Amino acid sequence: MNQNVHDCIQACLECLDACNTCFNQCLQEEDVKMMAGCIRLDRECADICALAMQSMQRNSPFMAQICALCADICEACGNECKQHDHDHCQKCAEACFKCAEACRKMAA
Amino acid sequence: MNQNVHDCIQACLECLDACNTCFNQCLQEEDVKMMAGCIRLDRECADICALAMQSMQRNSPFMAQICALCADICEACGNECKQHDHDHCQKCAEACFKCAEACRKMAA
Amino acid sequence: MNQNVHDCIQACLECLDACNTCFNQCLQEEDVKMMAGCIRLDRECADICALAMQSMQRNSPFMAQICALCADICEACGNECKQHDHDHCQKCAEACFKCAEACRKMAA
Amino acid sequence: MNQNVHDCIQACLECLDACNTCFNQCLQEEDVKMMAGCIRLDRECADICALAMQSMQRNSPFMAQICALCADICEACGNECKQHDHDHCQKCAEACFKCAEACRKMAA
Repeated sequence: MNQNVHDCIQACLECLDACNTCFNQCLQEEDVKMMAGCIRLDRECADICALAMQSMQRNSPFMAQICALCADICEACGNECKQHDHDHCQKCAEACFKCAEACRKMAA
Repeated sequence: MNQNVHDCIQACLECLDACNTCFNQCLQEEDVKMMAGCIRLDRECADICALAMQSMQRNSPFMAQICALCADICEACGNECKQHDHDHCQKCAEACFKCAEACRKMAA
Repeated sequence: MNQNVHDCIQACLECLDACNTCFNQCLQEEDVKMMAGCIRLDRECADICALAMQSMQRNSPFMAQICALCADICEACGNECKQHDHDHCQKCAEACFKCAEACRKMAA
Repeated sequence: MNQNVHDCIQACLECLDACNTCFNQCLQEEDVKMMAGCIRLDRECADICALAMQSMQRNSPFMAQICALCADICEACGNECKQHDHDHCQKCAEACFKCAEACRKMAA
C-alpha cells in the first residue's frame, strides 16, 4: 500500500470520527434548528468516509472514484461546520478539510 | 428462501425508507429541537435495517441475531416516532412496528 | 419525489438484492476461483447501491453524484457477471444494467 | 468517553482493516475455494465492526447491544481465519479475537 493510500485511510478515519461526534453533539445543542445543516451533512460525510476507507482497505477497483466523491462531500461538510463556533463543529471542519485534501491526492 | 425471510426483507426495506424519509423531514420541521430524538433514532434504525436486509439477502450465518437486534432498535424508533403528530413520524412508527414484528418472527 | 428518483430507488433495491444473492451463491459454486471477480464486484456494487438508495430516500444534496458513481460500478459488475452462465450471475448482470441506466437518468 | 469505549473503537478499527485486507487477499489466493468461508465472514465482520465503531462514535443508545453482537461475529470470523496459514488470515484472526474481547468488555 503506498503512502497516499495509507494517509487517506487515516484521514477518512479521523473525519468519520469527527463527523459522528459532531452529529451526536449537534443533537444535544440548545439551538438544534441552527444545526440542521450540520446534522444532515455529518451523516452524509460519515457514510462516504466509511465507504472510502473500506474501499482502500479492500483494494477496490473504484477507490479513486469513491475518494474523489468523498472529497466533494467532505468539503461541503467542512464549509457548513466551520460556520458554527461550537468546538465539535470547528474540529469537524478541520478533519473534513484534511480528509478532502487527502482524498484528492489519492484520487489524482 | 422461506416466507418469513422474504417478508422480513420487505419489512426492513419499508422501514429503511420510512426512517430515511422521516430523518429528512424532521430536519426541515419548524421545531427541530423537539425532533432530536427522532432524528437520532431514524439514523440508528436505518443503519440496522440496511444491515439486516443485506444479511438475509446474502444468507448470513448471523441473520437471526442481527434481526433480533433490529427488532429492538425498530421498537425504540417506533416508540419515539409515535409521540409526534407529523405524518412522516406516524408513518415511520407504523413501519418500525411492522418491521420489529417481522424481525422477531424471523429470529425465532 | 419525482418519477426518475422513484424508479432509481427501485432499481437500486433490485440490484442490491441480486448482488447479495449472487455473492452468496458464487461462494458456493464448485469453481470459486473463477468467480473471484464476481464476488469482489458484487460486494462493491451492493455497497454503492445501498448508499445510493439511502441518499435518495433522505434527499441527500449529493444524490446525483452518488448515482453517477453507482452507474459506473453497476456497469462494471454487470460486465463481469454476464460472462458467467450461472443463473444468479445472469440475473445479477440484468439487474446491474437496469440500475446503471436508472442511475444515469437520475444523475442527468 | 471512557477508556473501554475508546479501546473498543480502536479494536473495531483494527479488525475492520484486517478483515478488508484478508477479504482482498483471499480473493487472490491460488485456492480460492478453500477460502470461501473466510471471504464470507470477512465481509460479515467488516460490516458489523463498521457499525459498532460508528455507534460508539455517535453515542448510540444501542452501542452495548451492537458490540455484544459484534463480539460473536468477530469470534466466528477469528475461528475461521485461524485455520488458514496465510499471513493475512493469521493477522485477521488475531485482530478478530482482540476485537471480540474489547467488545465484550464494552458491552458488559
